[in-house]
Amino acid sequence: MLELLEEFTQADPGYSAQVCVIHRDEVVLDISVGPDLLENSLIGVFSSSKGIAGVVIASLIESGALVLDKPVTAYWPEFGAAEKDDMSVRSLLSHRAGVLGLEGGFTLEELTNHTLLAARLAGSRPVWRTGAGHGYHAVTIGVFIEELVRRITGTTFSDLYRSTVKEPLGVDFHFGVDAEAQARVVSILPPLPAGNDGRSPLAAIPAGGILSLAFSIESLPPLYEQADHPLVQAFGPAAFGGVGNARSMATIYAACLPKSRHRLARPDTFAAMAQIHSNGPDLVLDVSTRFGLVFQVPDGRLPFGSPWAFGHDGAGGSLAFADPKTDLAFGYTTRRMPAPPGCDPRALRLAHAAQMWARSRDH
Amino acid sequence: MLELLEEFTQADPGYSAQVCVIHRDEVVLDISVGPDLLENSLIGVFSSSKGIAGVVIASLIESGALVLDKPVTAYWPEFGAAEKDDMSVRSLLSHRAGVLGLEGGFTLEELTNHTLLAARLAGSRPVWRTGAGHGYHAVTIGVFIEELVRRITGTTFSDLYRSTVKEPLGVDFHFGVDAEAQARVVSILPPLPAGNDGRSPLAAIPAGGILSLAFSIESLPPLYEQADHPLVQAFGPAAFGGVGNARSMATIYAACLPKSRHRLARPDTFAAMAQIHSNGPDLVLDVSTRFGLVFQVPDGRLPFGSPWAFGHDGAGGSLAFADPKTDLAFGYTTRRMPAPPGCDPRALRLAHAAQMWARSRDH
Amino acid sequence: MLELLEEFTQADPGYSAQVCVIHRDEVVLDISVGPDLLENSLIGVFSSSKGIAGVVIASLIESGALVLDKPVTAYWPEFGAAEKDDMSVRSLLSHRAGVLGLEGGFTLEELTNHTLLAARLAGSRPVWRTGAGHGYHAVTIGVFIEELVRRITGTTFSDLYRSTVKEPLGVDFHFGVDAEAQARVVSILPPLPAGNDGRSPLAAIPAGGILSLAFSIESLPPLYEQADHPLVQAFGPAAFGGVGNARSMATIYAACLPKSRHRLARPDTFAAMAQIHSNGPDLVLDVSTRFGLVFQVPDGRLPFGSPWAFGHDGAGGSLAFADPKTDLAFGYTTRRMPAPPGCDPRALRLAHAAQMWARSRDH
Repeated sequence: MLELLEEFTQADPGYSAQVCVIHRDEVVLDISVGPDLLENSLIGVFSSSKGIAGVVIASLIESGALVLDKPVTAYWPEFGAAEKDDMSVRSLLSHRAGVLGLEGGFTLEELTNHTLLAARLAGSRPVWRTGAGHGYHAVTIGVFIEELVRRITGTTFSDLYRSTVKEPLGVDFHFGVDAEAQARVVSILPPLPAGNDGRSPLAAIPAGGILSLAFSIESLPPLYEQADHPLVQAFGPAAFGGVGNARSMATIYAACLPKSRHRLARPDTFAAMAQIHSNGPDLVLDVSTRFGLVFQVPDGRLPFGSPWAFGHDGAGGSLAFADPKTDLAFGYTTRRMPAPPGCDPRALRLAHAAQMWARSRDH
Repeated sequence: MLELLEEFTQADPGYSAQVCVIHRDEVVLDISVGPDLLENSLIGVFSSSKGIAGVVIASLIESGALVLDKPVTAYWPEFGAAEKDDMSVRSLLSHRAGVLGLEGGFTLEELTNHTLLAARLAGSRPVWRTGAGHGYHAVTIGVFIEELVRRITGTTFSDLYRSTVKEPLGVDFHFGVDAEAQARVVSILPPLPAGNDGRSPLAAIPAGGILSLAFSIESLPPLYEQADHPLVQAFGPAAFGGVGNARSMATIYAACLPKSRHRLARPDTFAAMAQIHSNGPDLVLDVSTRFGLVFQVPDGRLPFGSPWAFGHDGAGGSLAFADPKTDLAFGYTTRRMPAPPGCDPRALRLAHAAQMWARSRDH
Repeated sequence: MLELLEEFTQADPGYSAQVCVIHRDEVVLDISVGPDLLENSLIGVFSSSKGIAGVVIASLIESGALVLDKPVTAYWPEFGAAEKDDMSVRSLLSHRAGVLGLEGGFTLEELTNHTLLAARLAGSRPVWRTGAGHGYHAVTIGVFIEELVRRITGTTFSDLYRSTVKEPLGVDFHFGVDAEAQARVVSILPPLPAGNDGRSPLAAIPAGGILSLAFSIESLPPLYEQADHPLVQAFGPAAFGGVGNARSMATIYAACLPKSRHRLARPDTFAAMAQIHSNGPDLVLDVSTRFGLVFQVPDGRLPFGSPWAFGHDGAGGSLAFADPKTDLAFGYTTRRMPAPPGCDPRALRLAHAAQMWARSRDH
């Protein structure tokens, strides 16, 4: 992995990244390269936040407080409007709901107003009927998680995260950044225009379509500004508002592995969430995607691990995951948002090297 | 849009087209270009007929006469043969049934014999099992609609269309052409061979396969002759036998918009039909398609509007739709069948320009 | 077809193949070309075995001994572990189960141990949840068939094959090769490296992923050695252990045709199995595939017949199928495993020629 990082740095002198690899509860790599990021720097990880939110939800599933095959209305009665009364929690949390946004868009103020956006989404008609497929709920899956946590526990998602994950593990990952942490936050750099090879669905979002609805692009700031926005850093939206570093993400995922001494939930709980729930043509992104329950799982586009692996990437380039087959946890951040936005291809190369290393160590 | 039409005419001197755009019940464009089509000329619109049939069905759904989640057999008991007894009306009308045609094909005489083809389809085994996906029922979805109308109302589809859509709106669109209208019908010109770029599933239909079954190509006349055939013009099959013009199609779709003074059904009725019901690899066409209930809805191949838009294109090049988000209704016809057959790409460029214009007018 | 075989031989002097075509119970072609295969030579047919296994299963379905919409646990209670208690036999036999293999792989010894592998698969968690799609169960679908046969009939799959297919038809196709047959077995030649054009999912299976799981590549011998392995030839795994020739496969499929004098089951039984059950992006192979119940059915990648056709190909290049529309049965083997492994493209050209010939004979 060190040779890869050297290769990346030589090819791109402005390259900054954090990489952390944990194998069988042992930190085998925790490094930062480049001028801008230290190992304990913090950076907005965009949708890699969703994976951490998945870890938070796991404990509710394990305790039976959240039953995946119950209708959403069992927890959130207002959600039953517009023929959504039969939709299961499982559909909602595997990107199958079709409740992507609001016809007129929504602002960051509305998104960070706790109950307001959830109430409006509850009243809305899905873009597709359950059974038509799945598509990336880029923003709203976080609102669903926040509202379910609120309805079930009476606390906010970020409070539940703090008490069940952050404090027990002592990790430097934040949904809502305090003053101490704020001083260590490094801002995202916008994507370089030349880098856009046109392959990403986020390269240029046309106004008025389904992608624009899911990213609320008519009313939200540009993507690369979102994670650094004061409202986002203060509130910590579950969908994309996590602020952390490679080490903290790897540490959290390490605590999802079956053999970890710090286990956050039973292996079966994560194994059930890592089962492929949704696969194929994504109704929003118009490429093939693959999701478990909240988590992304490996596919040809994101080949980060075995069929038992689970994690998430982020538009800013980050990637973090756990792989029970190889006892591996991995975290990666970078400072420059890739063009097109999404998982930094270098993160996948590092993940592949880490997997090869872990397999060779087993023999 | 006028600049686009000029560009199209300069690039193709034989180009003939009608375009009609209605925004908030106001006709903002109603024009014909080229030597062959006047604004009030009539032309066969092929599968754009299906969209108009969707409008007819909407009133049955709204009144509760047709309940989408009931089995088809509730209205049409004979349809239950060959393990189809549980198939819902919703599956049938969202291209999920797999009842594509008959092993030996069928003729235009059989298709226009009212109950004969429906009876034979009712007895047949679907090509796929419900749940395996969806595929374009190019011809038979019209037979299903005709038979459901007959079973529920006791009248023919074209009579129901006449009394609930044509006469109330006073539109010049016909399922079954009378002598007055016949005089204004302009024939379809066959596709130019050189234009075939091989991208269309209809470019060359191999005998014996699923596509040949769905288009009954072994027993029907060539596609470009079908709309002009006397049997088709007399009977007006719901699937592809509508004869009209851009203005009449735009007028009908305008009456589907939530804010229209001439509303044919409640906004919720059309919103529910515009939800994506089927998406992904089409079992018949072997490309990705996206359907609501009867209607086509926008996707990457047919990007005509917002996630709330609904409409249909036709093999002869036509396109017509309504978009509740932009309060826009659009109709387009052309005389030369494209090669490959399907929506004229110029119609999509015009639709895009109309959408941009409507959005700019809103600001 | 003879001209095609001449063309193939001239282009590739090492080409060896058997072709057998039966039309309306009449053997219209039964030939071998090349230095290595005689008409009555035997060769391992890899996954073409699955199609023959489908024929065996048909009689259990027809008699009601195996009911497709019952849960697997009705026959095999232990299968209900890890939330599989509701999974239907239909899901299991149409590649929808997600029970692809074992995390640590399995050996040929384990695979040919009768109940051992079935017991371990029964306890395992599916890689995907039912409803997420389908993927090629390259090896395990055979284990499921073997175990269901054992549970339902008390005999082994190969005994049931022998008594219900092999002996009644007198065919030279074997699940488990005896000494007489062994003397006529020709070994598979490994794929030529230069031929690998990279299109096949089997061209290079990366370790650790879902494809490696489904083919158990970490613990089984290389693909081209499997069919010739003594354990495989002795046991005859239903998934890939059949040994036969073009004539025997064509003869078996001919007995599946509605008008055959030697019919093994009613036409409706095979028609129901030939309905498309699974279509679209294959979760294992990462290309689009199409399956009926056990059988493959034609799609753009394997266009061997009409929408009523059913059959299977094999990694060694073989192909065999029945097509009720054209009353055609077809068998093909070759000696050199294609690179990439899978149906020999020449088999598809021969099948197409046979179909054209059968259609022309009908007129």
